[in-house]
Amino acid sequence: NLDLTFSHPFPLSIELRFVFQSLDYDNSENQLFLEEERRMSHMGFRCLEIRRWVICGLIGFLTGLIACLIDIAVEELAGYKYSAVKQNIEKFTEFGGLSISLILWAALNSAFVMVGAIAVAFFEPIAAGSGIPQIKCYLNGVKIPCVVRLKTLAIKVFGVICSVAGGLAVGKEGPMIHSGAVVAAGVSQGRSTSLKKDFKIFEYFRRDTEKRDFVSAGAAAGVSAAFGAPVGGVLFSLEEGASFWNQMLTWRIFFASMISTFTLNFFLSIYHGKPGELSSPGLINFGRFDSDYIPFESFLFFPYYFPGGMLGALFNVINYWLTIFRIRYIHRPCLQVMEAMLVAAVTATVAFAMIYFSNDCQPLGQDSTEEYPLQLFCADGEYNSMATAFFNTPERSVRSLFHNPPGSYNPLTLGVFTLVYFVLAVWTYGLTVSAGVFIPSLLIGAAWGRLFGILLSTITSSQSIWADPGKYALIGAAAQLGGIVRMTLSLTVIMVEATGNVTYGFPIMLVLMTAKIVGDYFIEGLYDIHIKLQSVPFLHWDAPPTSHWLTAREVMSSPVTCFNRVERVGRIVDVLSNTSTNHNGFPVVAHTTENEEPGKICGLILRSQLIVLLKHKVFVERASSRLSQRRLQLKDFRDAYPRFPPIQSIHVSQDERECMMDLNEFMNPTPYTVPQETSLPRVFKLFRALGLRHLVVVDDENRVVGLVTRKDLARYHLGKDGLEELQLAQT
Amino acid sequence: NLDLTFSHPFPLSIELRFVFQSLDYDNSENQLFLEEERRMSHMGFRCLEIRRWVICGLIGFLTGLIACLIDIAVEELAGYKYSAVKQNIEKFTEFGGLSISLILWAALNSAFVMVGAIAVAFFEPIAAGSGIPQIKCYLNGVKIPCVVRLKTLAIKVFGVICSVAGGLAVGKEGPMIHSGAVVAAGVSQGRSTSLKKDFKIFEYFRRDTEKRDFVSAGAAAGVSAAFGAPVGGVLFSLEEGASFWNQMLTWRIFFASMISTFTLNFFLSIYHGKPGELSSPGLINFGRFDSDYIPFESFLFFPYYFPGGMLGALFNVINYWLTIFRIRYIHRPCLQVMEAMLVAAVTATVAFAMIYFSNDCQPLGQDSTEEYPLQLFCADGEYNSMATAFFNTPERSVRSLFHNPPGSYNPLTLGVFTLVYFVLAVWTYGLTVSAGVFIPSLLIGAAWGRLFGILLSTITSSQSIWADPGKYALIGAAAQLGGIVRMTLSLTVIMVEATGNVTYGFPIMLVLMTAKIVGDYFIEGLYDIHIKLQSVPFLHWDAPPTSHWLTAREVMSSPVTCFNRVERVGRIVDVLSNTSTNHNGFPVVAHTTENEEPGKICGLILRSQLIVLLKHKVFVERASSRLSQRRLQLKDFRDAYPRFPPIQSIHVSQDERECMMDLNEFMNPTPYTVPQETSLPRVFKLFRALGLRHLVVVDDENRVVGLVTRKDLARYHLGKDGLEELQLAQT
Repeated sequence: NLDLTFSHPFPLSIELRFVFQSLDYDNSENQLFLEEERRMSHMGFRCLEIRRWVICGLIGFLTGLIACLIDIAVEELAGYKYSAVKQNIEKFTEFGGLSISLILWAALNSAFVMVGAIAVAFFEPIAAGSGIPQIKCYLNGVKIPCVVRLKTLAIKVFGVICSVAGGLAVGKEGPMIHSGAVVAAGVSQGRSTSLKKDFKIFEYFRRDTEKRDFVSAGAAAGVSAAFGAPVGGVLFSLEEGASFWNQMLTWRIFFASMISTFTLNFFLSIYHGKPGELSSPGLINFGRFDSDYIPFESFLFFPYYFPGGMLGALFNVINYWLTIFRIRYIHRPCLQVMEAMLVAAVTATVAFAMIYFSNDCQPLGQDSTEEYPLQLFCADGEYNSMATAFFNTPERSVRSLFHNPPGSYNPLTLGVFTLVYFVLAVWTYGLTVSAGVFIPSLLIGAAWGRLFGILLSTITSSQSIWADPGKYALIGAAAQLGGIVRMTLSLTVIMVEATGNVTYGFPIMLVLMTAKIVGDYFIEGLYDIHIKLQSVPFLHWDAPPTSHWLTAREVMSSPVTCFNRVERVGRIVDVLSNTSTNHNGFPVVAHTTENEEPGKICGLILRSQLIVLLKHKVFVERASSRLSQRRLQLKDFRDAYPRFPPIQSIHVSQDERECMMDLNEFMNPTPYTVPQETSLPRVFKLFRALGLRHLVVVDDENRVVGLVTRKDLARYHLGKDGLEELQLAQT
Repeated sequence: NLDLTFSHPFPLSIELRFVFQSLDYDNSENQLFLEEERRMSHMGFRCLEIRRWVICGLIGFLTGLIACLIDIAVEELAGYKYSAVKQNIEKFTEFGGLSISLILWAALNSAFVMVGAIAVAFFEPIAAGSGIPQIKCYLNGVKIPCVVRLKTLAIKVFGVICSVAGGLAVGKEGPMIHSGAVVAAGVSQGRSTSLKKDFKIFEYFRRDTEKRDFVSAGAAAGVSAAFGAPVGGVLFSLEEGASFWNQMLTWRIFFASMISTFTLNFFLSIYHGKPGELSSPGLINFGRFDSDYIPFESFLFFPYYFPGGMLGALFNVINYWLTIFRIRYIHRPCLQVMEAMLVAAVTATVAFAMIYFSNDCQPLGQDSTEEYPLQLFCADGEYNSMATAFFNTPERSVRSLFHNPPGSYNPLTLGVFTLVYFVLAVWTYGLTVSAGVFIPSLLIGAAWGRLFGILLSTITSSQSIWADPGKYALIGAAAQLGGIVRMTLSLTVIMVEATGNVTYGFPIMLVLMTAKIVGDYFIEGLYDIHIKLQSVPFLHWDAPPTSHWLTAREVMSSPVTCFNRVERVGRIVDVLSNTSTNHNGFPVVAHTTENEEPGKICGLILRSQLIVLLKHKVFVERASSRLSQRRLQLKDFRDAYPRFPPIQSIHVSQDERECMMDLNEFMNPTPYTVPQETSLPRVFKLFRALGLRHLVVVDDENRVVGLVTRKDLARYHLGKDGLEELQLAQT
C-alpha cells in the first residue's frame, strides 16, 4: 500500500520502505549544456546573475509577507479566543459554574485544532510537524515527495495558524523555514505545478543545482523572519545544506534573509500602528537584554548546562517511543485528527486546572505587560501568575519569563508549570498538525531556568548580581532547546540575534555545547530521530573516523548496469522498467556487450535524460529519415523538470524497440571517477564536497566496476561499538 | 638577487618573479597514513578531537591577550604623548611660540614611527602592512614565506604599537588578524622554529590540512578580538579560506573567536578598573546605536552608496600607483624608514596646522567624552573641535564622529578633515610599518558621512528624523570601508556586531553592496591589488563564467615528469635538482621508460616526501642488506614539516645514485584525476572544493597526459573584454 507510506510523515523504517530520490548538485555537462554555455556572452551571464538577485529579493519579500500574515492571523484569533474566555471566566468567577468556562475554552481550542488537523491529515500530510527535518533532508540532497509544493505551503500556513490559535504547546517559528523553502522553490522555477501555471521565466534555473541554491536562500529567509536573525538564517542554511561554500551564493542568501526580516518588521510596524518603528524583527522577540552579565556568572551558569542536555534527551526519548506508537496505531487520518483534538482539549483542561488551583497572586503593576491578566480568586489589583504562563500565546509567556521583574513568579508555580508543559509539549510534537518545537522548548527551559535562578538567589541571599532571574531563564531556554534540537553554531547566533546582546554569546555557546555533548550521550537530536525513523539516506559532514579500512571496492554497488554509446531502445526501456533495480544513473561505456568484461567509461547518463529522449523519440533511424525534425534542446529537459514522467507512461512500439539511440550528445562525458582502492573517507569527501549523486568506480584500465550512490555512503554510521551499517530506504 | 624579492612585501610582478609554494589541503593517503589511521581506535580519534578543541581555546585565549597587550600599550603611549603635547601647547598658547609644540609633536611621532619602521624594515619585512593580504593568500592555499613565524608576530605587535602611538593614520585592527594566524600556526604545531623549541605535542597536526584549519581559527579569533565580532570572524575565515564547509571545524573556529573576544573584554575590564563590566568586546567599539532608524531613511541613505564606491576606488588607484613607485624607488630599508618618519612628521604638522587655523570652538559639555580637549584659542569652557578629530587616537575620533551630539562639528571642519585625512591615509598605507587600513577608512567615511548628514538636515530643515548625524557617519564609514576593501558578507556582520544593533544590518548591507559594485567598475579592492602586484596565484571562488570552451587539455601543463613505482635514485635526484622546472608533485606510473608513451597512473608523490626518503636513504638495496633498519614512519615526515631541506643539502654518493627507491609505500595511491575533455569550470570546481595542489589529467586509458596546478587555473581572469590570461609567479 504505497499510499500509506505518504500518509504519515514518519513511516517506520522496519515496516515501510519507500523510495527517496537524490538531488544532483553536479551539472551534467553534456554537449547541449556546453554549447549553450559557450554561446552565452559575458553579458548573458551578468543578466543571469541579476536575475538570481531579483529572485532572492522576491523570496525574502514573500517569506516576510507570509510570516506577517501568520503573525497577524494568530494574534487576531488568539486575541478573540482569550477575550471570550476571559469574559466568560470573569462572569462565572463570582457566581460559580466555572466548568462552563472550561468547556468553552476546551471547545474553542479543539475547534481550531480540528480544522487545522483536517487540512493537514486529509489534504497534505507532509505539511505536518515543523518541516525542519524535511528541509534538512532536502538541503542535504534528498528529494522528499511534495515537500516544496505550493499546496504544501498553503496547508502549512493555514495549519500553523490553527494550531497556535488552538492553544497547543507549539510555536509558529519552525514552519516558517519550510514556508520559505517552498516560496523559494516556487519563485525560482517561475511556475507552479499545483496551480498548473508556467510563467515561462527563470527557465535557466530549472535544474537541481540552481533550485537547491534558491531553497537554501528560502530556508534562511524563513529562519530570519521567524527569529529576526538574518545571520543565523544564513548559518542555518550553510550548516544544513551547503556542501561547497560559494561567496556569491552566501551573499545572495544573506540578501534574502535581510529582505525577509525587513519586510516582516515593516508590515508589522504598520499593523501595530507605529509605522517605521522597527522593533519586532522576527516572529519571536526575546526583548532586549541590556544588563551586562558578570563574567564569573557564566561559570556559575555551569550547573545549568547539564539539565538542558538531560531533559532534552528525555524529551527525545519519550517522543521517539510516542512516534513509533503513532506510526503503528494512529495512521488513519481521522484517528490523527481525533488525537490532535484530544490533545487540544487536554491542554485547555490542564491549563485551567493549574490556574484554578494555583494560589500565586501577584500585584498588577502599572507597567504590566500582561495582555490578558486573569484575576480569578485573587484580590482586586492582583492577577493570577499561573495564568501568565498558560493563558497566553507561548511567545508572550517566554517573554514574560525572560523579562518580568524578580518576584513575579513563585517557585512552586514554575516547578509545576515546567512539569506539565514538558508533558504537553512531548505529546504535541508529532501530532498531525503544522507546528514547531522551538517555542515550547524555550518555554520549558525558561521556566526551569527561572526557577533555578530564584532558588540560587534564595541560597546565596545576595541581591546584587543574582537579582535578575530573567538571565537564568534565557540560559535555561537555550539549554533546553539545545538539548532537544542539538543545533550548535546557527542556534547560538539565532539566540544572540534574538536577544540583541552580543555579550551573551559566550555563555549561550557554552550552554549549547554542553547540552549537545550531554544529550548526544543518550540519544540523537529530535530532528535526526525523525529523519532516521524515515530511514532517509542522510549524509553527515564526514565519514566516520574509523572507516579508513573500507575502500570504494567494498562500498560500491556492483555489478553496474551500463549502456553503450549507441544503445538499442529496447534494452533501455527494459532496464528503465525494471522496478527491482530502479537505478537513476547509468555509466555509458565503449564497445561492450553484456556478459563480457566491463567497458571503458565514456560518460554517465541519467534516467531523467533517457526518459526525455524516449519521449521525444530521439532515435538514430528517425534522425536520418526525418531531416526536418527539430533537434532536442536543453529546453526540452527543463520543461520536463522536475517531474519527469514514469517510464510506464511512455509508449514504445515493437518496431521502435529495435531502433538505436545515440547517447553521445546527452551523456555527461566527464563524470567524476575514483579508483577501487580509494578509502571511504576520501570517497565520502569527494561525494559530499561536490554534492554528487553518482560516483563511478573504475579499475586501472578505466573500466567501470561499480557505482557509489548516496545510500552506499549513508549506511555507515558510528555506533557505540564502532562502525555500524544502517538499514536505509532505497535511493 | 633573491634577497631583494623578500625584502619588500609587494614586489612588482613584471620585474621580480619569485616562487610561491602551494599548500596541500588534500591528505596524501599513502600506506603509512592508512596504517596509522586504521590502527587508531575510536577513542584515539576522540582524543584528537579534544586536542583540537583545546588548541582552539588556546588560540583564542592568546589572541585575546595579544589584542589586550596592544590596546594597553597604545593607550599608555598615546596617553603619555598627547598629555605631553597638550601641556606644551597650553603652555605656549598664551605666550606664543607654538612652533615648539609642533616640533615636539612631530619629533615624538617620528621617534615612535622610526623605532617601529626599523624593526619591520630590517628584521622582518613581511610584518609590514596589515597582513590581511598575506593571510588571505595563506587561507587561499598559497604559502607565503615566513608569514606565520613567531618572529613575524613579535615584530608585528611591536610595530603596530609604534605606528599607532606614532600618530600615523592607521589602525591596530588589521594586524590582529595576522597575529591570530601566527598564534594559531605556532600553537597547533606545538613548536617554534624561531625559538628552536619543539614541545613534542600535537604532532598529529603537522601537515597542511590541519595547520590551515587552525590558521583559519586564528584569523577568526583575530577579527573577533579586533572588532568584538565573533560571528564576523567566523564568516571572514570562511569567506577567505574554507573551500569546504565543515560543521565541526566551523564550530571550533567560533569557539576560538568567542574565547578571544571574551579574554580581551575580561582583561580590558580589569585594566579599566571595572572588572566584570564587559563593555569593550573588541579593540574598536562603535558604541551602541540605540535609535531605531526609520525604514524610509534607508532609501534616503541612497545617495551615500555611490561616493563610498568612488572614493574607495580613488583611494585604491592612488595607492596602486604609489605602491608601484615604492617598489621601484624605495626598496632599501633605510629609505623605507625615512619615508615612514617623513609621513609621521607631516601627519603631525598637517594636524597641527589644521587645529591652529580652525575656528571651530565647541562648548565643553558635562558628559563630554573628550579625552584630550584642546582649548587653544577658544574661549574658556570651550574646546577646539578640529582637535577632537586630529588630536586623538583614530578609534576615539571614529567614536566621537558616530556619537557626539548634533552640532559638535561644523561642516567646514568635516570637509577639510575628510580631504586631509584621505591624503594622509592613502600615503600611509603601504609604508614599511605594521598598520591596518580599517580605522582610517572608517574615519574618512565617518567624516564625510556626518558632513552629508548635516547638509541634509540643513536642506530639509527638519529636526525630527534628521536630528542624528551620527547615523549618517556610520553609513558613510561603511560605504568608505566597503569601497576600499570590498568585503561583503563578513564586513556587514562585523559592522552590525560592532554597532550592536541588528536593525542597521539592512542599510549597511545595501551600502556595502553598492560600494562594491561601483568600486569594482573602476578598480579591484585594495587587498586584491596588493595580491596581484605580488603576482600570487590566487584562486577565486569560481572559474570565469565564459570559460566553458576551455578544457583540461588546454589548461594543463605537459609533458609531465613521472616516476616509476620503483625508480632509480639518480634520476630522482636529477629531477629534483632541476631548478628550471622545480616541480613539487610527480605522478607515479606503471612500467614506462622515458621517450615512450605515457604510463598508467598509479599514484602521486610529492617533492617533500622524496626529500625525506632521500635523506633517510630508503633504498631497496639497503633494506635487504640492513634488515635491522628502522622502517620509515609518518613521524619522520612530520618532523621535517613544514621546512623540508632543499635537495642541494642532501648528499647522494655515486654508488647510491645507482640504487633503486620503492615509492609504492609512500605515494598517494588514489590521486584525483580528470579526463582531458573536462571543462575548465569543472576542473576548477574539483580543484577548489577539495583544496588540491595537483590534479592529474589522464586519457581514456588512464595514462598521464598532464598535470593541473594552481598556477594553471589562477591565470584565467575575466577582464573587460572577456577572458584574459595573467602573468603569474611560479608555483
